[in-house]
Amino acid sequence: MGLLDYFRSSRPKGSANVAKERLQILVAHDRTQRGRPSYLPKLQQEILEVIRKYVEVDMNAVSVKYEQEDSHEVLELNIVLPDTAEGRI
Amino acid sequence: MGLLDYFRSSRPKGSANVAKERLQILVAHDRTQRGRPSYLPKLQQEILEVIRKYVEVDMNAVSVKYEQEDSHEVLELNIVLPDTAEGRI
Repeated sequence: MGLLDYFRSSRPKGSANVAKERLQILVAHDRTQRGRPSYLPKLQQEILEVIRKYVEVDMNAVSVKYEQEDSHEVLELNIVLPDTAEGRI
Repeated sequence: MGLLDYFRSSRPKGSANVAKERLQILVAHDRTQRGRPSYLPKLQQEILEVIRKYVEVDMNAVSVKYEQEDSHEVLELNIVLPDTAEGRI
């Protein structure tokens, strides 16, 4: 399955007629050394800061998921951008 | 399909016995206004800079894929981290 298919399938049902400007960021980490603390939560904040340089982000429109299993961890950020969002650059 | 399943299925075949420290970053953008230039290429550089604060990244071990279709674009960064990578924080 291609990436575009994955993101298409993960889009909320019923949203086909309501086009929304949307950003989805996934960070997956395969770790060989489990003892170390994860830096994904810190990355999350910094990535959001980078994105806010380019588009307006309403922090209430950001949803965060974090999954961890054995030596794999995945961070998912879903951001619904305002309809009137103007690029800042 | 869950996220962890997706990343598991996208892992290179035959890598099961060779544990590698690996980071995968996906940025998907659903755009409502197509006329505007994409900022994903710029995000890519900045996200890499953020990651390099936490782990050593050999730029030769970074592979980048970019897919675009209609109003969707996806940026994928695959980073193989050095086995001896020490977290910087």
